[in-house]
Amino acid sequence: MTQLDELGKKAKRAAQELALRDTHSKNEALFNWSKALLDAKKELIDANQVDISKAKENGIAEPMIDRLLLTEERIESIAAGVREVAELADPIGAVDGMWVNEAGLTIGKKRVPLGVIGIIYESRPNVTVDAAALTFKSGNAVILRGGKEAFHSNLALVKVLQQALSETGFPADAVQFLEDTSHETARKFMQLNGYLDVLIPRGSGRLIQTVLENATVPVIETGVGNCHIYADAAADIDMAANILVNAKTSRPSVCNAAETLLVHKAIAADFLPEVEKRLAPFSVELRAEEKAAQFLKNYTEATEADFETEFLDFILAVKVVDSLDEAIEHINRYGTKHSEAIVSSDYFAGKRFQNEVDAAAVYINASTRFTDGSEFGFGAEIGISTQKLHARGPMGLHELTTTKYIIFGEGQIR
Amino acid sequence: MTQLDELGKKAKRAAQELALRDTHSKNEALFNWSKALLDAKKELIDANQVDISKAKENGIAEPMIDRLLLTEERIESIAAGVREVAELADPIGAVDGMWVNEAGLTIGKKRVPLGVIGIIYESRPNVTVDAAALTFKSGNAVILRGGKEAFHSNLALVKVLQQALSETGFPADAVQFLEDTSHETARKFMQLNGYLDVLIPRGSGRLIQTVLENATVPVIETGVGNCHIYADAAADIDMAANILVNAKTSRPSVCNAAETLLVHKAIAADFLPEVEKRLAPFSVELRAEEKAAQFLKNYTEATEADFETEFLDFILAVKVVDSLDEAIEHINRYGTKHSEAIVSSDYFAGKRFQNEVDAAAVYINASTRFTDGSEFGFGAEIGISTQKLHARGPMGLHELTTTKYIIFGEGQIR
Repeated sequence: MTQLDELGKKAKRAAQELALRDTHSKNEALFNWSKALLDAKKELIDANQVDISKAKENGIAEPMIDRLLLTEERIESIAAGVREVAELADPIGAVDGMWVNEAGLTIGKKRVPLGVIGIIYESRPNVTVDAAALTFKSGNAVILRGGKEAFHSNLALVKVLQQALSETGFPADAVQFLEDTSHETARKFMQLNGYLDVLIPRGSGRLIQTVLENATVPVIETGVGNCHIYADAAADIDMAANILVNAKTSRPSVCNAAETLLVHKAIAADFLPEVEKRLAPFSVELRAEEKAAQFLKNYTEATEADFETEFLDFILAVKVVDSLDEAIEHINRYGTKHSEAIVSSDYFAGKRFQNEVDAAAVYINASTRFTDGSEFGFGAEIGISTQKLHARGPMGLHELTTTKYIIFGEGQIR
Repeated sequence: MTQLDELGKKAKRAAQELALRDTHSKNEALFNWSKALLDAKKELIDANQVDISKAKENGIAEPMIDRLLLTEERIESIAAGVREVAELADPIGAVDGMWVNEAGLTIGKKRVPLGVIGIIYESRPNVTVDAAALTFKSGNAVILRGGKEAFHSNLALVKVLQQALSETGFPADAVQFLEDTSHETARKFMQLNGYLDVLIPRGSGRLIQTVLENATVPVIETGVGNCHIYADAAADIDMAANILVNAKTSRPSVCNAAETLLVHKAIAADFLPEVEKRLAPFSVELRAEEKAAQFLKNYTEATEADFETEFLDFILAVKVVDSLDEAIEHINRYGTKHSEAIVSSDYFAGKRFQNEVDAAAVYINASTRFTDGSEFGFGAEIGISTQKLHARGPMGLHELTTTKYIIFGEGQIR
């Protein structure tokens, strides 16, 4: 039996046990995780320093090293995140609906855990604890496969969680860590059918693409966001500029940041100079198509590739459209079905945009940056689904569950 | 561009249009399908006769030929099925929930169509119309890939539907048929990423396995059912025998039929002879493990393989268990997570069975044969999902939809 089969078997056994535990004891375990993490600050920082030194030796860029770093403050924030998950409502056991069929059977649709969840992620060690807390609270066992840069940090974090699980009478195997970080083993992990009920990749577009191409277990596709702000003919210029600046510059590296600005021709002459002025302090590079360029001072010429690209940087593609129809068509062609926004005071334009744009989240008069589990009120998120099956948009605890029909009879036959 | 890309493009365009049409006009179109099918009886039967002659030439078995056959009566029943779908509630446009977040955004979760659905199925031509009606009513475009035995029947049926669509102002491409029935093209169909939002196989275990292994588009796994009836120590013997006989013999070829009987040792001596007597008129072959065999007259010895097999025939594997725990363990090991039943008057035994057995539908004191969209009250079904993501159990119109977050702001930024 391979190491992966072993992990899979243990996870399955833990999942069976976990599925039957009540909310109160799961919460107690989570509060114990939080306490254990705070108690282990020193060991965690020591383990993290091993990763940091290696990263520096390997000449990893400063922002990447910062993402990797654990400090006392960051550990406190991770522990606080765990307590927040403990305080979320437990979706498990709720019956979404119950009815009596023609034969007199009482049929209920009950929320149950998915079972065993695999997570593949990249450098940030806080994902280890965030993902474990959400999967645990929703009654699932998890197998974590983190990036090799954070290996020692992740291992130390998982050990703390496993110890804390045992202390509260839970199977330590509810949270497992794949210690072999080779690409070959990652590939086998993506094909661990029979053990993994779902695999969720968290990270770059490249990681997600690799998982989609290689996985034979069910996958939830997350994250890639080529998001648009469309300033309609009836847009309030000031509001549209505010929203655009927020969506582009407040955190350009995330999936819900805007990448393209579409402007209706009727307001282009007023709006585009205003946008250029407001973006100047952030040194945003504008890649403008011809009709937009005439209203700008500093820009480069946009190519088709620019409209297809998730820049994740201080770059914005800009295009003038002749109509709402053209805006919708452009978005449905180039968008990644993540988050899209119209700015308009025209009721019918907003309604049409929301109906006809195909995306997980479609905004009228707000920044795309709100597409986020916490912002939506789910408390936390495991990722943002850009697929249509199972879950679409920010995924919280609810999206980590499935249902089971429970049927009560009195001897009925068909 | 390949024929498949062409089909995909047309389907996508049709899906965009379909998603915006109201319930009333979709229903009108469906009533027109029904009328058109009745009007075309003669052409349909003629086309079907081509398939039937070929099947006879090729020495296809009589039951298969019967499944393939279209008669006036069967066409009437297919047309009636379409009218029933028209009368079902339309899930599209409903908002499952709406709330205001901390920033004051109103966030709603709206039901929308999945988009383009692919269906791969085998011989019965009625599936062509059933599947088309359900996907159409839920606002999706469909690409159908039927078996080559029913080629002429399917083509004739789809032509009738397309003509009827055009007459009511809908794009004929809302229902398309893959005319190339080669295995090679089927494989490419399973990898039509970018066009197919989901692929649903309907048919034998082998077909489903092929789809799971080859598809790169999202798949909903359906149908395989190795279902158990567990007669508990506290079972009413007569009720348990009724349920077992119904679950085994009322239609052995379907996925919700029982394949294994588990009997608690405390009632084995009374129950098993009764079961043998009641099954005798149906000539059910009993494959009994040792402890069960001692209470039976006619049986063959069960091997482990018998407990793993979905017989879909008048064969029943039989095993005596020492406890409820052993029954649950056996089911969770050998079952396919489809439908499982306990017969017991013990409240706690029923509760434990329902909590701990991992399956789409878990029954107390009723036959597993009820796992069916119509029986559950969904009106019709596109298949029975045995996976945990997106849909579990019978899938009706609701399961052919996804959601879109619609967000209403007043200029909010984050």
